[in-house]
Amino acid sequence: MTMPFSRRHFLQTAGAGAAVWVPSAVHGYTGAEMARRAEQSGGELTPLGLSMWDLDTPALVVDLDALEANIATMQRTVTSNGIASRPHAKTHKCPAIARMQLETGSVGICVAKVSEAQVLFDHGIDKLLLTTSNVTPLKIRRAMGLRKWCDGFVQTTDTAANARDLSAAAEAAGVVADVVVDVDPGGHRTGITPGVPALELAQLVDRLPGLRLRGMLCYDGGSQHVKGFEARQAQTLERLAAAAETRERFQRSGLNTEIFSGGGTGTYNIDHQTPGLTDVQVGSYVFMDAQYIDIGGADDPDVYSDFQPALTILATVLNAQYAGRATTDAGAKACTINRPWSRIKGESGMIYTSGSDEFGSIRYEADASRTYAVGDKLELIVSHCDPVVNLYDQMYAVRNGIVEAVWAIAARGRST
Amino acid sequence: MTMPFSRRHFLQTAGAGAAVWVPSAVHGYTGAEMARRAEQSGGELTPLGLSMWDLDTPALVVDLDALEANIATMQRTVTSNGIASRPHAKTHKCPAIARMQLETGSVGICVAKVSEAQVLFDHGIDKLLLTTSNVTPLKIRRAMGLRKWCDGFVQTTDTAANARDLSAAAEAAGVVADVVVDVDPGGHRTGITPGVPALELAQLVDRLPGLRLRGMLCYDGGSQHVKGFEARQAQTLERLAAAAETRERFQRSGLNTEIFSGGGTGTYNIDHQTPGLTDVQVGSYVFMDAQYIDIGGADDPDVYSDFQPALTILATVLNAQYAGRATTDAGAKACTINRPWSRIKGESGMIYTSGSDEFGSIRYEADASRTYAVGDKLELIVSHCDPVVNLYDQMYAVRNGIVEAVWAIAARGRST
Repeated sequence: MTMPFSRRHFLQTAGAGAAVWVPSAVHGYTGAEMARRAEQSGGELTPLGLSMWDLDTPALVVDLDALEANIATMQRTVTSNGIASRPHAKTHKCPAIARMQLETGSVGICVAKVSEAQVLFDHGIDKLLLTTSNVTPLKIRRAMGLRKWCDGFVQTTDTAANARDLSAAAEAAGVVADVVVDVDPGGHRTGITPGVPALELAQLVDRLPGLRLRGMLCYDGGSQHVKGFEARQAQTLERLAAAAETRERFQRSGLNTEIFSGGGTGTYNIDHQTPGLTDVQVGSYVFMDAQYIDIGGADDPDVYSDFQPALTILATVLNAQYAGRATTDAGAKACTINRPWSRIKGESGMIYTSGSDEFGSIRYEADASRTYAVGDKLELIVSHCDPVVNLYDQMYAVRNGIVEAVWAIAARGRST
Repeated sequence: MTMPFSRRHFLQTAGAGAAVWVPSAVHGYTGAEMARRAEQSGGELTPLGLSMWDLDTPALVVDLDALEANIATMQRTVTSNGIASRPHAKTHKCPAIARMQLETGSVGICVAKVSEAQVLFDHGIDKLLLTTSNVTPLKIRRAMGLRKWCDGFVQTTDTAANARDLSAAAEAAGVVADVVVDVDPGGHRTGITPGVPALELAQLVDRLPGLRLRGMLCYDGGSQHVKGFEARQAQTLERLAAAAETRERFQRSGLNTEIFSGGGTGTYNIDHQTPGLTDVQVGSYVFMDAQYIDIGGADDPDVYSDFQPALTILATVLNAQYAGRATTDAGAKACTINRPWSRIKGESGMIYTSGSDEFGSIRYEADASRTYAVGDKLELIVSHCDPVVNLYDQMYAVRNGIVEAVWAIAARGRST
């Protein structure tokens, strides 16, 4: 596999501290020890002062300079485009990052599951949009239970029967629940058909005694990874057109359209061209990953460089006795098997694969920038950030290679 | 995609309660509620008496009849073949299942990571073989710390430098550490080259003051999924021949060979033909999965039916408004993206995919056995059990559809 020069150069230099080095006197701390230190120091964001290379591996690391830059870039762009950001917490599952996003101007936080909403609310996040409809009596009851305590919790519906169920449950819980209508962008995954069906559902929500209509959402997942900015823009705007027309119907019918949420990291600088869209449900921009790097950006057809790779996995070389290859301790349970495979930060001429559950594999190409010895550590740019984060209980927040905080991935595994 | 009749029939009828039904009055319990009930009832294996269909989804379910049958089949087979089982806990990460394995005759439990060993020992499992070499000072120190408390903890080495590090750390910790030599079956992933290199390493281990040689291991991961029993048998025996010859060298040199561990679920009824092999490191047999079903067995070239699919994921249909398809709540974060995809138990003519992080997708073929409505629940046979288990904090142990226990997946996420 060869890589265009520009992408390879970007990957080598991306983020702070691109050079991979290990201090000579690595002491070593386990995840449990680091969590304890963080707790003893008064919790999150307390400087811990250890080198990230002292961490036991595999370890999930977020570079604070890159994370902060990514959040600032997003906020600057959407603001100048006249819309807002409502970042999706399914990416990071981390209350500390949700707080950073709200403190820098995001209008709310999206979640995919009721359990994610519950955990974030437990951690003080109280502006929550649940982007998935709840369809079972149990989940609906759980959501209404949360709504009792959280005024800023907005739910989603995409069928008339479900809207009636939500209203009945809201009344039983003694609340009026805020609801948006999920409109299908054409992917047929979730959402009601735009146009008259969506309008009629919105009118029903508006009439039902237990519900308060807040607008609509239309998430076009299928457009986020279209390669090439122009192709991505064309597809996005075409697929959001029906939702925009639906929003006009809402308005003409006197319905609330204060929320028209959609879009993601791949289309964050495109979505504002859809009339009436209020905010983008961006997730991956905080971390970036190898999948998004490959889609290309407005300025560079090969590399999507609007955001910096901030999320990496530290791994250790376990075996190096065979020519042309090495084995690490970061396999599928540390990296997932998403493609493209994770990439070794700061190095070139190496292919990393994580197809084995417990072991990663490095293959050196003829122009490999180095070879590894047993015990060497390396840093991997994640393939697809969402499922990788979902494997870890904590991430280490580092700046210039020094651990500043241990962040609980409090909503990890919250899939219900 | 079409399936041979025999495989389809096996999948439809596999395990207890193949028919998918939902009781008319589903009440519903969250994972937290179920864990609390289990605790209040005195912990694991206390009958809880709820229908599995009352569980919030996605939920990981293990069928006790199938699990017990799989464990019995394995134990009966290896015993009649004159070897033992040393099941790998990387598959289940669950102390309750490790206990069942030891109580039914397994000679020990394998683990892939020190952190797994620590968690299992905390839960009373004290015959542990760590199949991965520890190469950093931190991990070696952690392992020797465990060895202080756990006499039955055996470690692995595959280089002379590492053996010396282990010995020095053992002496510093005031223990003599039990060690096996990891011999490479030809996959070049881990392990030392068989023959003289392995012999010399074993002799070094035998001499080092902090170590006690217990034998060797040779895990041939590359042979486990070879399709067709004859092909699998031929490859396995060929690749284990060098390890068997190495064991003879050990014996001729007066070295300890009480452990010669290797093999897995795909070769459990083949490995005993390798002279001197003492036990198989079988993992997936407890649960089975779609990947193993496809390899074929000694009696059936299409279906590996020696073990029953015992591990399933319960999912709920979220959207059914488009012809030919439905969307569920079990995507990549509930099922992984391993292939072959998960299969819907008890149904035919449906393709299930979990490529989206949050959503599963059902496509109906012309001969689909049914279609689903919003809110319907279904049961998925997992694709690849190890990484699926690693996504969940608990599994529900059911018999005839009734939840008998909530088992903590205590070593979930323990990848260090």
